[in-house]
Amino acid sequence: MQGVWFSEAQSANLGFSCRVKSVLHKEKTDFQDLLVLDTETFDRMLVLDGAIQTTIVDEFAYHEMISMVAVNSHPVPNRVLVIGGGDGGAIREIIRHPKVNKASLVEIDERVVECAKKYLPEISVALNNEKVEVLIEDGIKHIKEKSNYYDVVIVDSTDPIGPAVGLFNKDFYGAIFRALKDDGIMVAQTESPWFNKDLIRRVFSDIKGIFPIAKLYIANVPTYPSGMWSFTIGSKVYDPEKVSVNQIPDTGTKYYSQDTHFAVFKLPPFVKALLEQEV
Amino acid sequence: MQGVWFSEAQSANLGFSCRVKSVLHKEKTDFQDLLVLDTETFDRMLVLDGAIQTTIVDEFAYHEMISMVAVNSHPVPNRVLVIGGGDGGAIREIIRHPKVNKASLVEIDERVVECAKKYLPEISVALNNEKVEVLIEDGIKHIKEKSNYYDVVIVDSTDPIGPAVGLFNKDFYGAIFRALKDDGIMVAQTESPWFNKDLIRRVFSDIKGIFPIAKLYIANVPTYPSGMWSFTIGSKVYDPEKVSVNQIPDTGTKYYSQDTHFAVFKLPPFVKALLEQEV
Repeated sequence: MQGVWFSEAQSANLGFSCRVKSVLHKEKTDFQDLLVLDTETFDRMLVLDGAIQTTIVDEFAYHEMISMVAVNSHPVPNRVLVIGGGDGGAIREIIRHPKVNKASLVEIDERVVECAKKYLPEISVALNNEKVEVLIEDGIKHIKEKSNYYDVVIVDSTDPIGPAVGLFNKDFYGAIFRALKDDGIMVAQTESPWFNKDLIRRVFSDIKGIFPIAKLYIANVPTYPSGMWSFTIGSKVYDPEKVSVNQIPDTGTKYYSQDTHFAVFKLPPFVKALLEQEV
Repeated sequence: MQGVWFSEAQSANLGFSCRVKSVLHKEKTDFQDLLVLDTETFDRMLVLDGAIQTTIVDEFAYHEMISMVAVNSHPVPNRVLVIGGGDGGAIREIIRHPKVNKASLVEIDERVVECAKKYLPEISVALNNEKVEVLIEDGIKHIKEKSNYYDVVIVDSTDPIGPAVGLFNKDFYGAIFRALKDDGIMVAQTESPWFNKDLIRRVFSDIKGIFPIAKLYIANVPTYPSGMWSFTIGSKVYDPEKVSVNQIPDTGTKYYSQDTHFAVFKLPPFVKALLEQEV
């Protein structure tokens, strides 16, 4: 373990460490600690408040999987909103879809957007695209001001501590319901089925109480705790498991596909059990 | 990071650390360094040559997924062999299947079996079952002495360094082919699609060159590098994706199920691509 290492305390009892080639940027923004590293295993890496957010090597898994399942579950995903996700990775995937006319990003921390543009151009590449609108404001405030407006809303938040606490709140999901059109669909990243069981149970129960259709799916993200990550969908009309496969265009994705769209809903029984338990 | 920690160097550039409550056992066997720890996050944990093998908390994912996909792909998995797997976890799953009459374990290191019996009783519980035969010998030697004998062979090896090198060898897969009956099936653990791309390509190509049917599937194991683990199947007759779902009994598994049996073969495009590349 000689040399320079970055270690994330994934919990008080669990650590994840990678060898660092150089520290590219380090600052304390108005909202969080922001760090950009160049690492041996994952290339460049964005770290917020000590937690790895995204890396050049594995970012496609998270960004494709948080966005394309919901986007492809809607037959006409004309107007899409990403809350958080200031690195631009989800937006990049979304605008590859031929039916998306406009994708808005609402990020509270302008410094995340600026640093992504400077240090992670592969991820932030779409932020200057003409289809994309970048708003630097509070996602909760933004969503409360909209009504019957979006086709798809994607909550690409940090962990449920610090600036993102309110993005795991039942009132917030209710506000998303109202901001969506009558056939709208939402998805949120909802942490690890191994380590965040209580959170997943609670969020699933909240979303199920608001939306006619609630579903959870999983994907592998190597730099997130346990490597198994969950996403929770709330939908007014469209069931993501009943999408016609012909509705799913090939946008060059490397994790998401016509096959994985459906396979990720086939949950291991220990995950399925979380959704059936009383909160 | 105060207190006692165990750190695994998953590679020269990647570390995985967990807080340790106590060191239960530590020895140098004739084959490897053996360590049993009690940890905060994963309960008791078996470590061989510095690499986490299995833990009480997540062992079901690996043990169910290395064994039940192949066992359930065979209509009459009467006689099953596990090579390696001295902790007994795979054997425990296998003998829950109503059609398995005899399950043999060939483990080269008797100390792994003895320590699993003493410190990991939940995992090793089946090693004294009347259906189970435990042989302390070289798996390669054992397999070369058998012909047209087993229905299912499971290669539950450590990483392809140290005592397990020969278990990732083309000659070894050829010997398994001969040890299997005319409709036999094999499966081997084949490391991470994120970090062991060359190994996966090579093993898949080798097994495809020997068996009429070769398939790779994936599962999440939080304590293994990247959390995404691959398994490669070689089959003489039965296609694991064409199993009748009614052939799959419920043996109380928590990761494997009638759903996940099929879903795990729906590979993300970046994994699928490994299997299509020339070695």
